[in-house]
Amino acid sequence: MLHRIGKFTLEFENTPVITGYGSVAGKKESQGPMKDCFDKIYFDSRAGQDTFEQAESLFQQEALSCALKRADKSSDDVDFIFAGDLLNQCISSSFGLMGFNIPYLGQYGACSTMAQGLIMASVMVESGGADCSACVTSSHFCSAERQYRFPLEYGGQRTPTAQWTVTGSGSCIVEKQGKGVKVCRATVGKIVDMGISDLNNMGAAMAPAAAKTLTEYFKDTKTKPSDYDVIITGDLGKVGSKCLYDLLETEGVDIKSNHRDCGLMIFDLEKQDVHAGGSGCGCAGSVLCSKFIPDMLSGKYQNVLFMATGALMSPTSSMQGQTMPSVAHLVNLRSEQ
Amino acid sequence: MLHRIGKFTLEFENTPVITGYGSVAGKKESQGPMKDCFDKIYFDSRAGQDTFEQAESLFQQEALSCALKRADKSSDDVDFIFAGDLLNQCISSSFGLMGFNIPYLGQYGACSTMAQGLIMASVMVESGGADCSACVTSSHFCSAERQYRFPLEYGGQRTPTAQWTVTGSGSCIVEKQGKGVKVCRATVGKIVDMGISDLNNMGAAMAPAAAKTLTEYFKDTKTKPSDYDVIITGDLGKVGSKCLYDLLETEGVDIKSNHRDCGLMIFDLEKQDVHAGGSGCGCAGSVLCSKFIPDMLSGKYQNVLFMATGALMSPTSSMQGQTMPSVAHLVNLRSEQ
Repeated sequence: MLHRIGKFTLEFENTPVITGYGSVAGKKESQGPMKDCFDKIYFDSRAGQDTFEQAESLFQQEALSCALKRADKSSDDVDFIFAGDLLNQCISSSFGLMGFNIPYLGQYGACSTMAQGLIMASVMVESGGADCSACVTSSHFCSAERQYRFPLEYGGQRTPTAQWTVTGSGSCIVEKQGKGVKVCRATVGKIVDMGISDLNNMGAAMAPAAAKTLTEYFKDTKTKPSDYDVIITGDLGKVGSKCLYDLLETEGVDIKSNHRDCGLMIFDLEKQDVHAGGSGCGCAGSVLCSKFIPDMLSGKYQNVLFMATGALMSPTSSMQGQTMPSVAHLVNLRSEQ
Repeated sequence: MLHRIGKFTLEFENTPVITGYGSVAGKKESQGPMKDCFDKIYFDSRAGQDTFEQAESLFQQEALSCALKRADKSSDDVDFIFAGDLLNQCISSSFGLMGFNIPYLGQYGACSTMAQGLIMASVMVESGGADCSACVTSSHFCSAERQYRFPLEYGGQRTPTAQWTVTGSGSCIVEKQGKGVKVCRATVGKIVDMGISDLNNMGAAMAPAAAKTLTEYFKDTKTKPSDYDVIITGDLGKVGSKCLYDLLETEGVDIKSNHRDCGLMIFDLEKQDVHAGGSGCGCAGSVLCSKFIPDMLSGKYQNVLFMATGALMSPTSSMQGQTMPSVAHLVNLRSEQ
């Protein structure tokens, strides 16, 4: 059963276990600081497919396949899959996962999808509805850039606050019991909009949602940043991380010493020309599943907060002059050594 | 707790209750057979807003507000909201629901969203994670048509198999206990693609998913069509309903005598020039919440199957020559008199 702690936080009585995980990344990611972490790297941005969109679908297939293999499961063993991505109508997920023949619940949380999917997969297991469920998400620089901003051929100048969409995917298998990282608590975020309308400054748009979810989690659980080995954010990047520190400071919360942002880890900001860092569902997804889960299993970290943020606008809403509402979902993961 | 019956069906031990429901519709819907059923009708397709997209967000607000009022709840009482729509990045939901300040989990199931949202809201209540949760969905002819097909000004000729996107919204409040319609069982669908690629024939694309989910449900529960007072589909329309009958016939299942399709109910197909019927998330959403739930409460129906289908393609995937994968989610609702 699930219980509520405080006002907004869920506690998993039986702590579902992440028994499998998988990650896929692209060429640029393979040249960054995390090059040795990913399960699979595609050096061709079409991954042998006809289109970037089909390549992204393939990333989801590969990430899920790796996760299944690690959990020693076949797709028949998976009761539900929660998946989503950045593309219109989440086509990376629907086309990518079709062949697995698993009951499918499409999620839309923009770049927060890895946390949202992990929460839903864990809720389904905890509720008794599933023995085994999965989540998967992805993003692709080429498919995202041309959908959200400009044709790739245009070669638009990027602003210093712009982030680079990660080409990659991450997937987790969640089971009722087994060996692995435990899902202990979760806080589902509310939609927050502080009036940022610059499509090239997603970090600033998402930071207020992150600050809200994190402070609510700390209040609900009566814990503080130093209780955790690491506090991971999805893709706030350089600008968004700074905004988050500033916003948390007004609440008297300081996470600087144990905060890591996946968007700042996956690329070398000095050398890789990615401006404010990485972004996209595949950023938090691939970094969680290639770096943090293995680090928890090896004993480097034991008590971790993983929070992914998403900006919930569309090019249509932006062109109509609307600002960018955002959301942040948080999961507390633990490993026992 | 949730239990599994058979291979794919969930049974809700404590049967969460739909304690509130609300529906909103547009002008064309107000001229159809269901004109007296809706809670609120907007005769202006912009509903006083600047854009069709903002109008659609307003529909979600109004549908949720009606549902909250019927359940005698305020937004503060709602622990989670599950919402989604047809627009890119589900902006009707994110912009529409922002002001309610409810923890938000975006869903993408295309036209199956009403069933998906209702399942997830019920799972969250059954799991103990929520005392009260909500779901809401919407569609708008003008925002959908220009995003999926042609600019409205183009006035394209419609094929006989084309469906007319419903302008409307539906919302349910689900609680642990109370007076109302009970959520008893659910079957989450798998992604099915039988190779239909005609964007103007969604019914045919979705029918195989509906047939699969329905036959799995009957197998799992060892029940048959005549055990139910009515079997509701979301928006198969004229073509899709016929396809569903044909597909079910090969399985020896006949639902003709107690099948109703929301897409065939909301418009007068002879008089309203809608070709094969209504479609869109708002079709199943508004018909469930304006007609079937009230009919269950009045005692007209007691044991009902509500199954909404969704086509999971995007204009991008269609233009890239891909076919249309679909999904169907089913909920068994009961009322006790």
